Amino acid sequence: MTANKAYAIIAGVGAGTGASVARKFAQTYPVALLARNPANYTSLVSEINDSGGKAIGIPADVTSGEGLRKAVEEVKKEFPEGDLAAAVYNVGGAFIRKPFLEMGEVEFRAGYEANGIGAFHFSQSMLPLLLESTHLKHPATLIFTGATASLRGSAQSSSFATGKFALRALAQSLAREFGPKRVHVAHLIVDGGIDGLRVREFSGIKGEDVGDRFISPEGVSYTLLLYDPTFLVDEWLTHVMGQIADAYWHLHTQPASAFTFELDIRPYAERW
Amino acid sequence: MTANKAYAIIAGVGAGTGASVARKFAQTYPVALLARNPANYTSLVSEINDSGGKAIGIPADVTSGEGLRKAVEEVKKEFPEGDLAAAVYNVGGAFIRKPFLEMGEVEFRAGYEANGIGAFHFSQSMLPLLLESTHLKHPATLIFTGATASLRGSAQSSSFATGKFALRALAQSLAREFGPKRVHVAHLIVDGGIDGLRVREFSGIKGEDVGDRFISPEGVSYTLLLYDPTFLVDEWLTHVMGQIADAYWHLHTQPASAFTFELDIRPYAERW
Amino acid sequence: MTANKAYAIIAGVGAGTGASVARKFAQTYPVALLARNPANYTSLVSEINDSGGKAIGIPADVTSGEGLRKAVEEVKKEFPEGDLAAAVYNVGGAFIRKPFLEMGEVEFRAGYEANGIGAFHFSQSMLPLLLESTHLKHPATLIFTGATASLRGSAQSSSFATGKFALRALAQSLAREFGPKRVHVAHLIVDGGIDGLRVREFSGIKGEDVGDRFISPEGVSYTLLLYDPTFLVDEWLTHVMGQIADAYWHLHTQPASAFTFELDIRPYAERW
Amino acid sequence: MTANKAYAIIAGVGAGTGASVARKFAQTYPVALLARNPANYTSLVSEINDSGGKAIGIPADVTSGEGLRKAVEEVKKEFPEGDLAAAVYNVGGAFIRKPFLEMGEVEFRAGYEANGIGAFHFSQSMLPLLLESTHLKHPATLIFTGATASLRGSAQSSSFATGKFALRALAQSLAREFGPKRVHVAHLIVDGGIDGLRVREFSGIKGEDVGDRFISPEGVSYTLLLYDPTFLVDEWLTHVMGQIADAYWHLHTQPASAFTFELDIRPYAERW
Repeated sequence: MTANKAYAIIAGVGAGTGASVARKFAQTYPVALLARNPANYTSLVSEINDSGGKAIGIPADVTSGEGLRKAVEEVKKEFPEGDLAAAVYNVGGAFIRKPFLEMGEVEFRAGYEANGIGAFHFSQSMLPLLLESTHLKHPATLIFTGATASLRGSAQSSSFATGKFALRALAQSLAREFGPKRVHVAHLIVDGGIDGLRVREFSGIKGEDVGDRFISPEGVSYTLLLYDPTFLVDEWLTHVMGQIADAYWHLHTQPASAFTFELDIRPYAERW
Repeated sequence: MTANKAYAIIAGVGAGTGASVARKFAQTYPVALLARNPANYTSLVSEINDSGGKAIGIPADVTSGEGLRKAVEEVKKEFPEGDLAAAVYNVGGAFIRKPFLEMGEVEFRAGYEANGIGAFHFSQSMLPLLLESTHLKHPATLIFTGATASLRGSAQSSSFATGKFALRALAQSLAREFGPKRVHVAHLIVDGGIDGLRVREFSGIKGEDVGDRFISPEGVSYTLLLYDPTFLVDEWLTHVMGQIADAYWHLHTQPASAFTFELDIRPYAERW
Repeated sequence: MTANKAYAIIAGVGAGTGASVARKFAQTYPVALLARNPANYTSLVSEINDSGGKAIGIPADVTSGEGLRKAVEEVKKEFPEGDLAAAVYNVGGAFIRKPFLEMGEVEFRAGYEANGIGAFHFSQSMLPLLLESTHLKHPATLIFTGATASLRGSAQSSSFATGKFALRALAQSLAREFGPKRVHVAHLIVDGGIDGLRVREFSGIKGEDVGDRFISPEGVSYTLLLYDPTFLVDEWLTHVMGQIADAYWHLHTQPASAFTFELDIRPYAERW
Repeated sequence: MTANKAYAIIAGVGAGTGASVARKFAQTYPVALLARNPANYTSLVSEINDSGGKAIGIPADVTSGEGLRKAVEEVKKEFPEGDLAAAVYNVGGAFIRKPFLEMGEVEFRAGYEANGIGAFHFSQSMLPLLLESTHLKHPATLIFTGATASLRGSAQSSSFATGKFALRALAQSLAREFGPKRVHVAHLIVDGGIDGLRVREFSGIKGEDVGDRFISPEGVSYTLLLYDPTFLVDEWLTHVMGQIADAYWHLHTQPASAFTFELDIRPYAERW
């Protein structure tokens, strides 16, 4: 076993969950970080490399098969003899909330392009690598990030919900096809306003609207954080995100006799 | 109240459920039948018109917004003062079953294009008409046809399942937005091999594979029917399909105080 | 076929859904109404008999096997050559909402006794009769009434939710065992504050708390009704409940080739 | 923080999951093991104490409130200044499979008594202790063990399914009430024939019936193990069960900002 040659690929590394998952997996594996916009991974790549890990960033449009093929070639050049241990698809896509009759086709499609087609191309690129990975300590793993909208189509949210429902269907289908081949396919539902940046960007939630819903584990009111956006990406949020990332890592380390397909995760004070 | 001016639109009228729904609604309303291929509705239009009802056929690609806009113009020309009472989206799309890694992007997208984008355009065209319908006996109704794959992503079925999951997400989202505006949005899950033609075409099921699963309500073995494809579209299948269509009609006739969003339907002998 | 000898049994006929279901089925069948307290059915029995139907009331504790056996004997005496066409179990049980640590065992058990054990005894008494019913126009039917709590265990509602979850498990299990024997087992989820009396009694909702949630189909504000409890059992509520009862009747009339197991039902303005 | 005074309680420690959970938690905490029959924990208590951990066994009928009160008194005597860190309810109850009309009330009730009432008493005894636990490294945790039957009522399995559905309703209700109080309530669905002993005992599955479904992670055929019952409780099964127990431990160690309510777990080759 040459587990030290194993590596991981994370697609979708903005300021939230994806970056934390990358940090977590980088504690064990070299990681390749994929994002359309290099600005999303540059500082993270430096951070990981500076702290003794190994990370490379690859600009890739995961919603295009061609984009992913090129990214995989790059990855293989970097890790020519490595085994892909884990691939995480964390591309949320924009959360669009608007009256249905005001929504254009491009907006409606956006949810599916990010969560359906993106996940399709990612899976088609990753699964052959995961199936070939035979020198791993933990079963090869493919994890998708879901949301509350994976289970519920809310009013005025059809773009995001159709994408997240489609992603869950794909994940189930892949788990049933590739589980018996010992590839661990899992779907992790991140519920509630865990990812502070998303909450601000996509839901249009203002600090003053939030009420008592966002209470930090340390008792610091999340409301205050939302008032001060510069505070959001700081150490505290990184800490909380890191705790979510532990669930991704736990999924990856499950042995073949004990695969979890789906779990939900939310802050203790979240209503659901 | 001038309910006699109300009409219904059915999209997707092949030999199965859609045609039966059209026959059922044509007992009360003039119906406009939409299908990409006129061959799918020509004889049905004649049948309805010959038996005292009124039906028109409109060739339309429901996966294109432009196609639906033209179809709606045609419909409005035919029923200039009518109120749209009910719109049924019954476009199943091809059931593709193959190993995931052998599936191309076009095949994968097919499920979403038929069930996601098609339903999006249909909803955007129908909802303004349904919202304007104020002289109806029953609340204006928008019904989508789901399948077992609406709830479960099976191995090698990701194309169909992602499409049907997405359709269900859209239906939920629309029900929550337009229910309070008194438009009844519903999702009907047709489980099992109810639709004989689909079974044959899409699942590759041979008569001899079917075993005892398809037993007609009259005790005639479905297996025999599947051996003889010419028998499939005959009176018996029409009769069975008509019984499913009753559930669509029941949904349409529910008053605003008693809306059902979702129901499943299957033959008594179906395993689930 | 001697469908005129068919009869129906309704267990749980208070002022809400159960009574309306009884009225609906009494339009076609003689009905036997079961309730622990005769006060719950006396006026309903008179109403049905006075309006040209036939109804008998039988006092029965459905949570006891012995109680149901006696009730069945009575029913058989009344309808010696009849076939049981439909049996409806509509015993909600008390909705208890209190902090879990203040709940006693008797209170906790109450949900299961009403919805689990009651439904067990009812099913054991009804199924042999339903299996024997061979001269029916519609397949013999066993319907259970569920609630929002059938799908969701809310805070402080564990007694009611455990009972309703258990009832749904039983209904599923019976549908899978007896469906292939042509007995139609179904589960109808009545969501929201449809049943005005229950809302008042069990949720402690005051008229002034209700806001805009309870709007009658005719535009009469439900809030006003709740202010005036004597108004609640009047013609209007009977009318609304009758619309729900139509769904029970539709389930009963489904042919064996098109059985619905589960459907939800709620007023158009209900949030869900 | 005096985490060394923290302890755990495990109810239901037969030869399968419960024993492995006990072993896992005993690596960090002293553990109190509850079982009706001391024979179920005696050797496990010795094993843990012999290997450097600390375990006590307490005979307790968890389906009785009185039984649990006594057990809690014993526990408090043993750990007078300790904080309860985690409580696991792993009492499956007998899996009864028989035609519904042959099932007696006592058999039907058995599922609820074990999973509903037992879990009620356990929760009422544990939650006050968990709420008082303020010197813990990880949030105080209450975990319930579910099964495939938690989500599906199969034919002839109504006793077990009603119990497991009820348990899930209780777990949801408690998670929603006590999550905001920082007690982590979780529900872990152990799917498939993971627990070899149960498979043999409750499903009546013979080795030769099992086919290819039970393949050990090491490639050893599970079929062979089932032929030789003495082999079942050996090192291999303990190893596999230990891998499931890791998921319980992971749930316990989740911080308050990242609580999972529900996860499923199954062997890679299990069909679902």
